[in-house]
Amino acid sequence: MVAVPRPRTLCIVGLGLIGGSLAAALKTRTPHRWQVRGVDRRRTSLRFAVDKGFLDHACDTLEEGVDGADLVVLAVPVRAIREQLAALAGVVCPGQVVSDTGSTKVGIVEEARARLPQGVAFVGGHPVAGSERTGVESAVSGLFETRPCVLTPADDVPAAALEAVTALWQDAGAEVLCLDAPTHDRVFAFLSHLPHMAAFSLVETAAAGCEAGRYGLAGGALQDFTRVVRSSPTMWRDICLENREPLLQALDRYADNLRALRERIVTGDPDALHQHFEHCQQLKDKTWKP
Amino acid sequence: MVAVPRPRTLCIVGLGLIGGSLAAALKTRTPHRWQVRGVDRRRTSLRFAVDKGFLDHACDTLEEGVDGADLVVLAVPVRAIREQLAALAGVVCPGQVVSDTGSTKVGIVEEARARLPQGVAFVGGHPVAGSERTGVESAVSGLFETRPCVLTPADDVPAAALEAVTALWQDAGAEVLCLDAPTHDRVFAFLSHLPHMAAFSLVETAAAGCEAGRYGLAGGALQDFTRVVRSSPTMWRDICLENREPLLQALDRYADNLRALRERIVTGDPDALHQHFEHCQQLKDKTWKP
Repeated sequence: MVAVPRPRTLCIVGLGLIGGSLAAALKTRTPHRWQVRGVDRRRTSLRFAVDKGFLDHACDTLEEGVDGADLVVLAVPVRAIREQLAALAGVVCPGQVVSDTGSTKVGIVEEARARLPQGVAFVGGHPVAGSERTGVESAVSGLFETRPCVLTPADDVPAAALEAVTALWQDAGAEVLCLDAPTHDRVFAFLSHLPHMAAFSLVETAAAGCEAGRYGLAGGALQDFTRVVRSSPTMWRDICLENREPLLQALDRYADNLRALRERIVTGDPDALHQHFEHCQQLKDKTWKP
Repeated sequence: MVAVPRPRTLCIVGLGLIGGSLAAALKTRTPHRWQVRGVDRRRTSLRFAVDKGFLDHACDTLEEGVDGADLVVLAVPVRAIREQLAALAGVVCPGQVVSDTGSTKVGIVEEARARLPQGVAFVGGHPVAGSERTGVESAVSGLFETRPCVLTPADDVPAAALEAVTALWQDAGAEVLCLDAPTHDRVFAFLSHLPHMAAFSLVETAAAGCEAGRYGLAGGALQDFTRVVRSSPTMWRDICLENREPLLQALDRYADNLRALRERIVTGDPDALHQHFEHCQQLKDKTWKP
């Protein structure tokens, strides 16, 4: 007789695009393995998630959601994660595991260490997925499929806690890898936060430099860049505040490179310009396949 | 009895993505209206275009291509357009109309005025279409459909010449509009040339700032940005040289805006950051619909 393991109980705090998609992924892909509860101050989001079958239970309070849960995942904007960690401190019990989905990790890992009681493990998480859409209404069960999910466990995290969070994201379809939190924040400053800042400033510049009525002349490049500007101002405010130093370093490198390109244009050496663009193209081919 | 107008004869100089797609569009959409000849030093491109039915005739020389043509369109990179205008000077005859497809216009319009004989009209053209692919092998007949094509006729261009070039691009599916050349160059510095420069520098920065082996962690934003970096280094070299002043102005505005954003991040006022991102989003919504 083979014992069927009981489903694990997950409490998702924050039913937005990420929390909603996590719930949807688990209930679609491995419904027998997870009992999924949701906590959200927006009752319409909870009702939507229950109606769609993403959640087994909608909970009225954080306390109710956490009570008896194996795993609690905070899926709110980065600064709200800090607040939820403080609120959690009074309701979690030893043996429970807490994780999150924030795009920055150093500050959150520190806050978790400062706030959570002894015996409650925290495993920082960052599913590298999303879209310019927000809210549970945009949630899709396939959002994490074949996408990376970075975990940033501290050295003293128990193996069982890391395994539980790894299994969660694998069940959601993601490819899990581990980084230390400072490396995570530095890499994402360059790979994600800088590109978004570049896009916000590009929209600002293009809109100001181009008289009204000419916007329709924009080609595909600007359209591509501006898509991401639709994403949440709250999210980007929080990322700027939480990942300040790595992001400033990335912005400075970007400014240096733009200044060097400006110099090449001023100098006007055709070969130097051609070599530069070819070099960038080769970097792109080596690093990000078409 | 209604007279059927004889087909017009078009000579396309340069069978790359744009020239090839123009030929393909005409022979697909309005084959009875255009006899299409091609001139290209790459014989394989000509052969490909003939085999695909894009061209009625492949010509061995510019002289042969131009002889008796109603309209000559130069569809080569911007600096090569200047060279072709010099070469054309000796072979065009009064009554013929010359146009081009270059992404910058002031320098080309001046060069045409200096080079072409009296009685040969020049109408600068810029079909706002393309892709990160290059070469006639990537040509598609629908490339210009519903896309803008900007014409920059000088004040003294005969109405018949402007009508001929307008009809050409309308037959190819484009929506034709006219701008004066300096306005064209300024608008496209902001809407197209700057975004491409921003993308080249972003690839350079992200690749340098992120250790090897982490590139796979890039999200959708960077992928969007880097797509355009595949486009031709020769094209971008030429655009930088031809549209230097407007492009430098756009780069300076962009640097100013990035610097102001940097300051907001340093200051760390949550409300100011939130307002900034919201403002950029509103600009995007007002100007470039999702």
